[in-house]
Amino acid sequence: MSADFIDDGIETTAEDLGEPKVDSPVQGSTFVDARDRVLISSSIEAIENSFSDKRKLASFELAGPRKRIFFDPSKTKCAIVTCGGLCPGVNNVIRGIVLELYHMYGVRNIYGIPYGLQGFIPRYKHQLIDLMPATVQHIHELGGTILGSSRGPQDISEVVDALERLNINIVFFIGGDGTLKASSLVAKEILQRDFVCSMIGIPKTIDNDISFVSKTFGFDTAVEEAKRIIQCAHVEATGAPNGIGLVKLMGRDSGFIAANAALAQRDANFVLVPEEDFDLDGQQGLLSVLEKRLEGRSHAVIVVAEGAGQKFFDSATLKKDASGNEKKGDIGTYLKEKIEHYFYRKNIPINLKYIDPSYVIRSVAANASDSIFCGFLAQMAVHAGMSGKTDMLIGLWNNMYVHVPIGLAVGERKKIDISGPLWSSVLESTGQPVMKN
Amino acid sequence: MSADFIDDGIETTAEDLGEPKVDSPVQGSTFVDARDRVLISSSIEAIENSFSDKRKLASFELAGPRKRIFFDPSKTKCAIVTCGGLCPGVNNVIRGIVLELYHMYGVRNIYGIPYGLQGFIPRYKHQLIDLMPATVQHIHELGGTILGSSRGPQDISEVVDALERLNINIVFFIGGDGTLKASSLVAKEILQRDFVCSMIGIPKTIDNDISFVSKTFGFDTAVEEAKRIIQCAHVEATGAPNGIGLVKLMGRDSGFIAANAALAQRDANFVLVPEEDFDLDGQQGLLSVLEKRLEGRSHAVIVVAEGAGQKFFDSATLKKDASGNEKKGDIGTYLKEKIEHYFYRKNIPINLKYIDPSYVIRSVAANASDSIFCGFLAQMAVHAGMSGKTDMLIGLWNNMYVHVPIGLAVGERKKIDISGPLWSSVLESTGQPVMKN
Amino acid sequence: MSADFIDDGIETTAEDLGEPKVDSPVQGSTFVDARDRVLISSSIEAIENSFSDKRKLASFELAGPRKRIFFDPSKTKCAIVTCGGLCPGVNNVIRGIVLELYHMYGVRNIYGIPYGLQGFIPRYKHQLIDLMPATVQHIHELGGTILGSSRGPQDISEVVDALERLNINIVFFIGGDGTLKASSLVAKEILQRDFVCSMIGIPKTIDNDISFVSKTFGFDTAVEEAKRIIQCAHVEATGAPNGIGLVKLMGRDSGFIAANAALAQRDANFVLVPEEDFDLDGQQGLLSVLEKRLEGRSHAVIVVAEGAGQKFFDSATLKKDASGNEKKGDIGTYLKEKIEHYFYRKNIPINLKYIDPSYVIRSVAANASDSIFCGFLAQMAVHAGMSGKTDMLIGLWNNMYVHVPIGLAVGERKKIDISGPLWSSVLESTGQPVMKN
Amino acid sequence: MSADFIDDGIETTAEDLGEPKVDSPVQGSTFVDARDRVLISSSIEAIENSFSDKRKLASFELAGPRKRIFFDPSKTKCAIVTCGGLCPGVNNVIRGIVLELYHMYGVRNIYGIPYGLQGFIPRYKHQLIDLMPATVQHIHELGGTILGSSRGPQDISEVVDALERLNINIVFFIGGDGTLKASSLVAKEILQRDFVCSMIGIPKTIDNDISFVSKTFGFDTAVEEAKRIIQCAHVEATGAPNGIGLVKLMGRDSGFIAANAALAQRDANFVLVPEEDFDLDGQQGLLSVLEKRLEGRSHAVIVVAEGAGQKFFDSATLKKDASGNEKKGDIGTYLKEKIEHYFYRKNIPINLKYIDPSYVIRSVAANASDSIFCGFLAQMAVHAGMSGKTDMLIGLWNNMYVHVPIGLAVGERKKIDISGPLWSSVLESTGQPVMKN
Repeated sequence: MSADFIDDGIETTAEDLGEPKVDSPVQGSTFVDARDRVLISSSIEAIENSFSDKRKLASFELAGPRKRIFFDPSKTKCAIVTCGGLCPGVNNVIRGIVLELYHMYGVRNIYGIPYGLQGFIPRYKHQLIDLMPATVQHIHELGGTILGSSRGPQDISEVVDALERLNINIVFFIGGDGTLKASSLVAKEILQRDFVCSMIGIPKTIDNDISFVSKTFGFDTAVEEAKRIIQCAHVEATGAPNGIGLVKLMGRDSGFIAANAALAQRDANFVLVPEEDFDLDGQQGLLSVLEKRLEGRSHAVIVVAEGAGQKFFDSATLKKDASGNEKKGDIGTYLKEKIEHYFYRKNIPINLKYIDPSYVIRSVAANASDSIFCGFLAQMAVHAGMSGKTDMLIGLWNNMYVHVPIGLAVGERKKIDISGPLWSSVLESTGQPVMKN
Repeated sequence: MSADFIDDGIETTAEDLGEPKVDSPVQGSTFVDARDRVLISSSIEAIENSFSDKRKLASFELAGPRKRIFFDPSKTKCAIVTCGGLCPGVNNVIRGIVLELYHMYGVRNIYGIPYGLQGFIPRYKHQLIDLMPATVQHIHELGGTILGSSRGPQDISEVVDALERLNINIVFFIGGDGTLKASSLVAKEILQRDFVCSMIGIPKTIDNDISFVSKTFGFDTAVEEAKRIIQCAHVEATGAPNGIGLVKLMGRDSGFIAANAALAQRDANFVLVPEEDFDLDGQQGLLSVLEKRLEGRSHAVIVVAEGAGQKFFDSATLKKDASGNEKKGDIGTYLKEKIEHYFYRKNIPINLKYIDPSYVIRSVAANASDSIFCGFLAQMAVHAGMSGKTDMLIGLWNNMYVHVPIGLAVGERKKIDISGPLWSSVLESTGQPVMKN
Repeated sequence: MSADFIDDGIETTAEDLGEPKVDSPVQGSTFVDARDRVLISSSIEAIENSFSDKRKLASFELAGPRKRIFFDPSKTKCAIVTCGGLCPGVNNVIRGIVLELYHMYGVRNIYGIPYGLQGFIPRYKHQLIDLMPATVQHIHELGGTILGSSRGPQDISEVVDALERLNINIVFFIGGDGTLKASSLVAKEILQRDFVCSMIGIPKTIDNDISFVSKTFGFDTAVEEAKRIIQCAHVEATGAPNGIGLVKLMGRDSGFIAANAALAQRDANFVLVPEEDFDLDGQQGLLSVLEKRLEGRSHAVIVVAEGAGQKFFDSATLKKDASGNEKKGDIGTYLKEKIEHYFYRKNIPINLKYIDPSYVIRSVAANASDSIFCGFLAQMAVHAGMSGKTDMLIGLWNNMYVHVPIGLAVGERKKIDISGPLWSSVLESTGQPVMKN
Repeated sequence: MSADFIDDGIETTAEDLGEPKVDSPVQGSTFVDARDRVLISSSIEAIENSFSDKRKLASFELAGPRKRIFFDPSKTKCAIVTCGGLCPGVNNVIRGIVLELYHMYGVRNIYGIPYGLQGFIPRYKHQLIDLMPATVQHIHELGGTILGSSRGPQDISEVVDALERLNINIVFFIGGDGTLKASSLVAKEILQRDFVCSMIGIPKTIDNDISFVSKTFGFDTAVEEAKRIIQCAHVEATGAPNGIGLVKLMGRDSGFIAANAALAQRDANFVLVPEEDFDLDGQQGLLSVLEKRLEGRSHAVIVVAEGAGQKFFDSATLKKDASGNEKKGDIGTYLKEKIEHYFYRKNIPINLKYIDPSYVIRSVAANASDSIFCGFLAQMAVHAGMSGKTDMLIGLWNNMYVHVPIGLAVGERKKIDISGPLWSSVLESTGQPVMKN
């Protein structure tokens, strides 16, 4: 977050479809007011500077139920779409949206769009899914998404055409960076047509790498599962002479899962993340350091985030996946081969066990913490949609739920601060040196 | 937190034993500076008021490694004591302190005080426990505390006598509200004697009810376990005609576990917490509302925090436990009997299953999230102790680790704000009415 | 199993409704033949005696698909009823029966009887549940029974009236000893009326105490859960000076759960079961032995089966539960009070933590082993029903599924042989002495 | 098991080192007698044939404590070695042996041989591990083996030299088929030297494929974990259009894990095992059948045992692993590529997620059922060793623990009977056709 980016807080108010004109049917809540705002930076220095410059403090709108809402619930039609890779908690969010719309606002028409953006496009011939409380009753016990998902862009106009044809008033996009960018284009095109529809995003990235969002759902569950995997790798490593457990974890641009899982299960001796460069060869390189480790301790556990060490790949030869994400070089397999080759040439027998558990991690059901979190995200998304907000996502900031304009959140990824306490703690826990020549 | 309590931030700086005089041996860290402070209130209104009143913004000291430290690690002797009830993560904190002292600072003399404050008192004849990295290697896989714990106050002078006799330089107290109060008295008595010893507290309360601390360790794990129990209660309730699952959860003064577990496993139809009064009898009372629920749905799940409904007990007849906590009336058993009696008199057969899972929840090992958290608390506690801070505890505030003077944290308990989003969400999820006549 | 009870194998052939007259639609199976039989006793001595006496070897009918079946699937109506207490795996059995009937035999009319035997009786006004593959798709992920259960006998004629009125051809009873006795009476009354209906029992007893059935479903899952509880009790016991963890586990007449859980989690120091008498007082009594244990080791874990120590209760004052089972004296609470009183009088402070986890154990979903087992029981039950067998249950014997006439299985409970290897192993593991004066 | 192999039961008595000459110190047990034997075949037909031919019934020696033992416990030295791949429960067996030797027999010298057979060979310079009750107290909470393991043969004479040099009286081999063969050679060479040492094997094969042993430890836990993985694969498959979850499970020669896991989590649509041949191409081949499945249901889950489909590989090009096991062709990757290629050529977009979870399954701690089982195996192994048996392993047969001469158990692998109830049930559950042209 750069201070000059958030100038006078102007960017940080979500778009409105218009003046709210209906009394909210939500009972017993304390309503949120436009003046309830959440400070973006709590740096004391930044605050003092704002004051001396006579600028307003940059802040987000607080999420929550509004006393006056935009849509008449009895006439409102809603849609939910889930895009991109699986992530624990998607079904919790779907369920939460359905139950909130149905029970709190009395909305009766709620549709699930099947298989991501494909579901909007007629030629795919996917069938809309009717979402009622009974449909979603037990879905949070299951991982994945009952709606199905898909990767890849679709024509924005076709998506808006579908929304218009279906007469949707609020559409909820559950997806990652690429989906949120697309959803913002959808929201903008809707605003240009003579068609009233709110677009609310709920950020889904197991990597926890969305800017201006302190935590994304599914991350906590993923760390819990990744912890178990590191424990397995440690058991494998100690179970054989010169055993090496090598685990590749999710983290395309940011190493949060790798770093946190390594702190949760303190068996990792090396944690490699996209945020910190490392060499393989040379005296300070990983291979040489690993050899010393084996000499001393006979085993080692290496945790590598999928986006680490990309300098070893020729980006010209890498493809993009269907979502348009640049495909990363497969650092796990690469390391496996380099390590095996290195010790083979030195005639040192090793036992390397490589584990790539991504599908086993991301497909589990949400744990308690993520379940609670998903429930709040869903409620806040419904409140935002019913009050006529659009082109925004629900984020958590300073432990409060806020409205984040999508333009602010997408683009730059949140990354580990390698001079901050998280990474320091990883370095302490692993004892790994700087692996640069 | 009352604004007038935190006047100009004066109270919020931890006591120092004296001027740091040794260079820290901690490698590769970004050191924290006395000027790094964390804002206490991020209310925009409060900040603006401070400025117009020309008061300093109330803030905490940031925790972390200091460049200059107070104790010479090669001569430092440390002790760890764990007091009060069990809580997931205690062993993680012990382990973290030992590994941080040993590996980062090079401290070699670390003692575990057995069975809480009793361990300081000679007449109990408990044996000191030598704590080395090998001793603590696997203890985080186990629940409980390897040191043992006990309840109940001990003479403060005797405790300080023991610390002096053992020549302890830093003592870490892991305990709840009562322990922290005692530890503050210990710190103050040490300061009055001609004896140099730092006292650092790590707040341990599974109920998550310490003021100025946004989360306590073990709470997240407890909610995870409590979620499973609510699921069991729901299975029992639906498994029999007019089935009622009644679960008593921890929460003497605050209903955080009950509220969060009910949100994590949305099967509870009634959540009763100390913060919200309710009646049993009368048309709006729980019994009558429960009867209507059974008529409509044939089953019900009730989650009650142990401190709820205390108005039904004559406090004169209640005793105190060994820690001096007033014993609560047993609301679980009380409700069970009241409900059974009510339906018996109405000649309506019910099947009530009462579950009191406290020991099964609090004795499990910490989950991933709590493991990470405990690791940070331990590191920060060691940094604080080595730098000569005393009479303080490590807290989490605005997602940062801070030094909280003990006087600020103890006394008033943190409670659920019943007009805030947590409780609103519980009411939405359960659909429970106000149960007051 | 007494040798004279099984005389010449006569008792061990299940009743037939009549001659099978339809070809089985089951594809690809190896059909079972009336001559496929399973030896009851594999005692070499018993076998040799049979031969020298020229008696036939006592044996069971092997379960499995028959080439010729009794009922025409297209006209068959089936019903499933679940009775008594919850047990992991009931939903798996229901699901297995529905899927087998539907997909393998093409039966289309399958009804769930709600809330046990009550569901047959008009005055309870429970609604029949239509069971289709879609209804049961995910139910095995949940504990309990989707049909609901109830305790207590109902008039046998009324049950048969209901079956006749509903025109049911096969009824599956999932229940324990009492239910099986009732189901046998149902089968016998059906045979006397001019009405063709097969009654197949699937024994459900978490205690694993049915004779001529080597294992009952849910038992394995229960032991897994009970293992976790014993671990909690051990953590509690070691966490306080003179800590005592006291766990009451299921086991009305047999201590299989207690014994097996104690072997799975070898932290128990005393295991008390119905099969072995023990004293409390006196020099050899539990209290005195416990005191010595605490002197030496400062903590103890006691696991008690609910049916142990019943001699301490005046059976005249005990009631029966709705199922007609004699209510056991509450040995858990009794021991808790006796132990607390004993040490109080001796002025020895103890910390006793009492855990009664029954509802938390029996309401979980089946583990892998029980899921597989339930699947086989369901298939075999359907094969037996379709082939016109009646008044029998499906049992596992010598690792094979067999038809057990109900009269043979009910009546006498299976018990731990206290001179056999299971109990020897428990004694070794705990080191507990004979606690008799 | 072939009837002519077990001729008159002669082969089925384990080798004895000599006449037992010491009274057993084991207390309170019912001792086992040489005449206690367990019937091998309970086929009624086979029994009747034996009788008419006047042959003795083939039977095993019953395992258990003997009244008179061969070794004087106070002078006995024991060693434990673990070989081959990891398997849940190895630590439980180690722990059980140590505790039984120490507490029941009073043996004080117990050594762990590090890293499998390597640990016997001086040039590897591994250090012996002293095994005391304190060493093994918590090891069952961990997966893997605390002794370490290795693959690969070592010179039998060198192994026996080491045993002689260390003066070992009983050596326990925990390992698979290859290890057991080697251990039998060790036992035979010992018998030829003037050196008294018992060799007792405990079969360790996660695949559960040892003949004359109805279940091996770790298998039950592996199925539990594999069940979770299949659930993940199903979530992945249903989460994307034309989603395919492909899971490779352990099972070199036998598909027991694949078959049982598929029955435990009934989401698999295809189960491929070594025991049943299948084609890929052609109208009946897997690829064509899979295409039809996707047309109808849009998703599919395939479970393949690692030893399935080996006909697709040129065995001439396959290597052997260090244990001398022929390396299998990697059927998982092969199928992945074939399937992707097939649908790519047909221009049908699919989403295939391939999961190879072996290390994540085999490295977990034993579940309750396996823990109990390992405890018995360990006790029985100690009883056998102390009583002077050798060249045998402990097996479970007809739910009883028996002494199996190693020559009988090794050689031929146990396999799924594809005309038996296990495989029939898999076919029913998946609905998969015969995939042969």
